[in-house]
Amino acid sequence: MSSPIYGVVPPVITPLTSERRFDEESNERNITRMIDAGVHGLFVLGSSGEVAFTTDADRERILASAVSIAAGRLPVLAGVIDTQTPRVLEHVAAAERLGADGIVATAPFYALGGVDQVEEHFRAIRRATDLPIYAYDIPVCVNGVKLQPAMLLRLAADGVIQGVKDSSGDDVSFRFLTLANRTAEKKLALLTGHEVVVDGAYMSGADGAVPGLGNIDPAAYVRQWNAYRAGDWETVRAEQDRLADLMTIVTAAQGLTGFGAGVGAFKTALALLGVIATNEMPAPVRALAGAEVDTIAAILERNGLPVA
Amino acid sequence: MSSPIYGVVPPVITPLTSERRFDEESNERNITRMIDAGVHGLFVLGSSGEVAFTTDADRERILASAVSIAAGRLPVLAGVIDTQTPRVLEHVAAAERLGADGIVATAPFYALGGVDQVEEHFRAIRRATDLPIYAYDIPVCVNGVKLQPAMLLRLAADGVIQGVKDSSGDDVSFRFLTLANRTAEKKLALLTGHEVVVDGAYMSGADGAVPGLGNIDPAAYVRQWNAYRAGDWETVRAEQDRLADLMTIVTAAQGLTGFGAGVGAFKTALALLGVIATNEMPAPVRALAGAEVDTIAAILERNGLPVA
Amino acid sequence: MSSPIYGVVPPVITPLTSERRFDEESNERNITRMIDAGVHGLFVLGSSGEVAFTTDADRERILASAVSIAAGRLPVLAGVIDTQTPRVLEHVAAAERLGADGIVATAPFYALGGVDQVEEHFRAIRRATDLPIYAYDIPVCVNGVKLQPAMLLRLAADGVIQGVKDSSGDDVSFRFLTLANRTAEKKLALLTGHEVVVDGAYMSGADGAVPGLGNIDPAAYVRQWNAYRAGDWETVRAEQDRLADLMTIVTAAQGLTGFGAGVGAFKTALALLGVIATNEMPAPVRALAGAEVDTIAAILERNGLPVA
Amino acid sequence: MSSPIYGVVPPVITPLTSERRFDEESNERNITRMIDAGVHGLFVLGSSGEVAFTTDADRERILASAVSIAAGRLPVLAGVIDTQTPRVLEHVAAAERLGADGIVATAPFYALGGVDQVEEHFRAIRRATDLPIYAYDIPVCVNGVKLQPAMLLRLAADGVIQGVKDSSGDDVSFRFLTLANRTAEKKLALLTGHEVVVDGAYMSGADGAVPGLGNIDPAAYVRQWNAYRAGDWETVRAEQDRLADLMTIVTAAQGLTGFGAGVGAFKTALALLGVIATNEMPAPVRALAGAEVDTIAAILERNGLPVA
Repeated sequence: MSSPIYGVVPPVITPLTSERRFDEESNERNITRMIDAGVHGLFVLGSSGEVAFTTDADRERILASAVSIAAGRLPVLAGVIDTQTPRVLEHVAAAERLGADGIVATAPFYALGGVDQVEEHFRAIRRATDLPIYAYDIPVCVNGVKLQPAMLLRLAADGVIQGVKDSSGDDVSFRFLTLANRTAEKKLALLTGHEVVVDGAYMSGADGAVPGLGNIDPAAYVRQWNAYRAGDWETVRAEQDRLADLMTIVTAAQGLTGFGAGVGAFKTALALLGVIATNEMPAPVRALAGAEVDTIAAILERNGLPVA
Repeated sequence: MSSPIYGVVPPVITPLTSERRFDEESNERNITRMIDAGVHGLFVLGSSGEVAFTTDADRERILASAVSIAAGRLPVLAGVIDTQTPRVLEHVAAAERLGADGIVATAPFYALGGVDQVEEHFRAIRRATDLPIYAYDIPVCVNGVKLQPAMLLRLAADGVIQGVKDSSGDDVSFRFLTLANRTAEKKLALLTGHEVVVDGAYMSGADGAVPGLGNIDPAAYVRQWNAYRAGDWETVRAEQDRLADLMTIVTAAQGLTGFGAGVGAFKTALALLGVIATNEMPAPVRALAGAEVDTIAAILERNGLPVA
Repeated sequence: MSSPIYGVVPPVITPLTSERRFDEESNERNITRMIDAGVHGLFVLGSSGEVAFTTDADRERILASAVSIAAGRLPVLAGVIDTQTPRVLEHVAAAERLGADGIVATAPFYALGGVDQVEEHFRAIRRATDLPIYAYDIPVCVNGVKLQPAMLLRLAADGVIQGVKDSSGDDVSFRFLTLANRTAEKKLALLTGHEVVVDGAYMSGADGAVPGLGNIDPAAYVRQWNAYRAGDWETVRAEQDRLADLMTIVTAAQGLTGFGAGVGAFKTALALLGVIATNEMPAPVRALAGAEVDTIAAILERNGLPVA
Repeated sequence: MSSPIYGVVPPVITPLTSERRFDEESNERNITRMIDAGVHGLFVLGSSGEVAFTTDADRERILASAVSIAAGRLPVLAGVIDTQTPRVLEHVAAAERLGADGIVATAPFYALGGVDQVEEHFRAIRRATDLPIYAYDIPVCVNGVKLQPAMLLRLAADGVIQGVKDSSGDDVSFRFLTLANRTAEKKLALLTGHEVVVDGAYMSGADGAVPGLGNIDPAAYVRQWNAYRAGDWETVRAEQDRLADLMTIVTAAQGLTGFGAGVGAFKTALALLGVIATNEMPAPVRALAGAEVDTIAAILERNGLPVA
């Protein structure tokens, strides 16, 4: 089993052509730009990677593309996100076959069943693969189910999971998890998914971040990480303040929420920066347009990211 | 487009072998028993049909089996349940290919995006198929998203949807929907998914019911439907009181909730009645056992369903 | 202890003057009109009675007014609604002193503490009074806490509570409660608070209704009750269909939700009918105005309630 | 209007005698100990001060006691927490009369009404008093209502509110608020209520903390504040790690949640430390006992707080 991941691991967005097909050229530009900026890993087929909108055939194409671009220079984690165990296991097999360095799995969703079912889900995945498993804690997407620290630590002790991507929005729980993890024998790699409070997560002892905004300004997150490793907290904080302002691009959308507003803004910013070809979104989500795009352009400019 | 459905349309459970594989023989016994009891339609690959646990290959096997058993004697609706539009459209194509008489789709889930995204999801499905579409309102499974009556009526007026399966647990909203539907030009077929208050839904003017418990005692739901058509409300109510008591089998499970407790009880009852071979559940859910099974046996017996 | 209540028990709204003071004359007209229509009890200081907005001094004034107007002709239940036990007990003492025939208490709220705390709350109230206690199940107002049937039946068996006002919106749970209550030794009086599905609640065996809309058209709810007692279900249903249409007055408000839209509509209707002097609402809620009022007037007219 | 507050402002717990009466002597010991430790303000009658359990007469006694003990040495903020505006205004008048230096108000609760109602609530309070107003953002207690940054900034710009106590658990929203507040003309005093992640809040630019755990170890929070002012982030973080471990006392309770577990643990710790006489809790909450107390004693000891 490869060693746990750390540092800046952006959840890679999935660029589309104007016909809503996977745009491999844009994908290569986006990933290469992040690698050049010094990110430590890539997470493809996550929530920001529009995994929930992607057919199985396209999932394979997207993962294969990332593995090929990464070419062993940094680990590639693959989301194996689906409703319940039997369906997830098919994605696990594909991830293994395509050369992923680790997999990221949420709690099972759509059908609720209680905490035992959640724990057994991760154990069943472990029985099916030797890849490192990262538990993805994202209650807002999985009917409110929060992965409890006690369960995560138990799964770690048993060698079932090797890390956690925390997008729960519960920084109190995350602090208790980092605290308990510190004294555990088999330590979890604890990554925060909240790009505007990565400094707070580093204060809590996080091992890294999975910032969607890292697609837009990967260099800033890498600078912040380096400052963290050097104990330069004023820089950690200053980088975060700037990134928090940059993150206000997600408020540009009108009448869209969640994924549509957030990933819609990320793609629009990358298109404005000339990194990807279009800001197209998967059905049934519309792309940002008009004044929404202007707002994002202005925020990019004022944060030193000149629009092409 | 075929005419809307009505009457008793049980959501067919999916029997498994002890190796957790689809048990076609048990499926045939279960479906045939329901057809013999006079049910008016079948809904396969619904929540109770463990669609969220079923791989695409098995989904096709299960749907083909039902269509073959039904043999045109009654309509077969197919759940096309998945996270977002592109994935759902693959299931729609399969449903068409395999001969389903209609499809049942929930709001998109996992990634949230607002009400416009929900409406566009149904419109995108309509553009892809001529099959009748039934909107499945089940907030508890789709991150709390409730299908609002105003949107449903708008989709009906535009010919997008032909019916609604209401499992929202919101009988007030259902009453307002039935009321408004009565004066609409293109009427929706309005079916309730709450098996213990079908009498109340009939009072509200429901066109039918999709009772999971209908797998266990289809004849009782048919008797209740016939009484409803005849205006014999005392029988409607008496049948419901008995069925409500029978439904307490879902409280037998210890430490399981939702799907695990409910479908677990349905399968256990059917196994006790000799209809299906095992009460096996899909991973990561455990089957009911021991005292849980005894409790269910006792409830069946006291309601005149002798255990084999 | 007086016998449990039954029948139509409207939650009495609290009329205000244009200076937002309690309007006793309007209150007398409103209550007298309901008594003349044949309602079986009155519930003052409930959610629709704007108890949460009312100072302790005004609560006493409002309760004393109702008791005086009722003059023993029908029972008057008093809401003792406040955050936690010590505060509630002060209202209980006032209710006793002012001659209420029973009290209505919710789960404790604001500070959460688990199911044991909820049960002990009702037991503590019982230790402080001999009045009948009605448990008020209204999760939407008390941080989502649902009163579970098992707890309610246990409290009934111990003589702690004598009835339940169910405004939980969970008709499935209500059916299980009525079913279990039927065989209990100390039966609960089970009243529904959902005015648009009272027919369904009667199908479930409810002992009565607490319809806010009963302020507007008490005679219709009394006719429905009488039909229910006579087994005339078609009339029960027909009255309900008309009352459901009348209830659409609560959708007239723009930009208001919940209490503001609902009680705002009730007061506006009563003012339009000439029963109360103004449709004034308590701070910080605004009264309905303009087109909102016109919409309500039209709904009243089309349901045979001519505007003054 | 006095200047906004800053620094460590513990929400003062309310000690009770074994008869569940307010214990003024214990209160004096607890408050004096915190003043001696250097805290910068006191917040009485907050959630941790069991305001929801406290009668109006006792609320006045508790506030008067704190004002008298503080004796002008540091500001005393008073919670004016109640369901809706008219009731809150009575507490505002009492707070003024008793000499509070500021008031703390939540969103209105129990009856829902939409965002306009929430904003008007704060404006109505401003019209009634010249005291500084702190908006208390605690969705879990007020039916999930979150105070949105845009509304808070608008209320600040209009001079309605002077600060915010954030107990929303939403550190992302808090970061956006601190960011926008920095450039506002009338700045808000932004205090975090989450005692285990105060370091993250300081990274975000918080002006202080309102830590319930500050009752137990006020000196540690003062040391952390001083380190923050001095830019000594390693100390800020080290103090937080220790305080996070100390905070695990709230997990000692069995079968209690929320207030019962949290404030129950705080009182038990203070009783063990000899600061207050009993760990008694208000009805209907039970006090911690037996093994729960032992667990807390051990956590205190291992964090250098020797049990008496």
